[in-house]
Amino acid sequence: MTAESAPPAPGTVRPGGRTARTRSAVRDAVLTGLGEHGYPGLTVEYVAEHSGVHKTTLYRRWGGVEGLVADALDLAGEDSWAPPDTGSLAGDLRALAHEVVETFGAPARAAAPTAFVAAAFQSERAAGALRAFYAERFARCAPILRRAVERGELPPGSDAGAVARAVSAPLFFRALVTREPLEAAHADQAAAAALAALRAGVYRSADEPE
Amino acid sequence: MTAESAPPAPGTVRPGGRTARTRSAVRDAVLTGLGEHGYPGLTVEYVAEHSGVHKTTLYRRWGGVEGLVADALDLAGEDSWAPPDTGSLAGDLRALAHEVVETFGAPARAAAPTAFVAAAFQSERAAGALRAFYAERFARCAPILRRAVERGELPPGSDAGAVARAVSAPLFFRALVTREPLEAAHADQAAAAALAALRAGVYRSADEPE
Repeated sequence: MTAESAPPAPGTVRPGGRTARTRSAVRDAVLTGLGEHGYPGLTVEYVAEHSGVHKTTLYRRWGGVEGLVADALDLAGEDSWAPPDTGSLAGDLRALAHEVVETFGAPARAAAPTAFVAAAFQSERAAGALRAFYAERFARCAPILRRAVERGELPPGSDAGAVARAVSAPLFFRALVTREPLEAAHADQAAAAALAALRAGVYRSADEPE
Repeated sequence: MTAESAPPAPGTVRPGGRTARTRSAVRDAVLTGLGEHGYPGLTVEYVAEHSGVHKTTLYRRWGGVEGLVADALDLAGEDSWAPPDTGSLAGDLRALAHEVVETFGAPARAAAPTAFVAAAFQSERAAGALRAFYAERFARCAPILRRAVERGELPPGSDAGAVARAVSAPLFFRALVTREPLEAAHADQAAAAALAALRAGVYRSADEPE
């Protein structure tokens, strides 16, 4: 039995700890590589060198670059992010919008989401992982509308995911599509627009009870 | 004097005709190449082969791949596109949204805009050309609001470019960022949301007279 396959001493590594640490080191190397070289320049060799995990292990467990990028996205989706809770519907939507502007306004924070979106243009697997990531992320925004209904700010029956997408879309559009400057005023405008449309009944859901 | 540098016989080629034809052939080859290989796979050799224009000419006039892509975008911006004119503000915004959905719903039409947006992740020059392209495109939407004001549907003083961006953003976001399905219902929702926000005064411009 080699040291690597030996079970950890009780109490020193939590169950899955070694695997989780490897996965996290690999994810970090993928993010660094995407930031430095973009998806077209990312190689399994680069990830091996920067994670300290052997190339053959990377190929065996992740298959290659596409699998590495998709898994890094899956792992990004396992964070503890929760939507803002400011005490009002307008405040929550505004805070959500400002989070997007702050992300794309700071190069270090913008690198990973930008690289993932870029990778999806070239990898179907990355595109699928991105779709799953955002679907789950927007589903986490449900408490924003639930709390607004509880506070009597909004009638029940609107689609929280549609509202969160509406707040985010104009900001991602400027940052990643039209390549226009993105300022705090755009966050305020995106939040105000989503709120006006929400109040006008644009995001009423056929699925939810009235 | 070689045949190539001889002036055209009067009436056979309009001024700039040969240059314009070369540029258009090069643009077509760039679009085909971007569609087939994406930006990372596009080469000057490919464009030379598919346009019939010699490689040394391409390097001399466009500098390389970045210049070729930027010029193809500049040329795309010289089309005669005009915003829809349906007779009502709501109808114009809905038609504008449906144009976006129809573009991204048809692979042949989606290829060029998708490739340009992808190229901007890797080329600052493509990003600059894309920014100029969209700024000019959205500026062309001014008649939508001007006609609405003339019809008495809207008070003056809203920013037409902001409204056109608001209509487009949620659709580009699904197609190119979150990679979610894009249906006609999303066009209707994007147009209705922009209209509600516009009526609520979200896109009032500080620059324009009241």
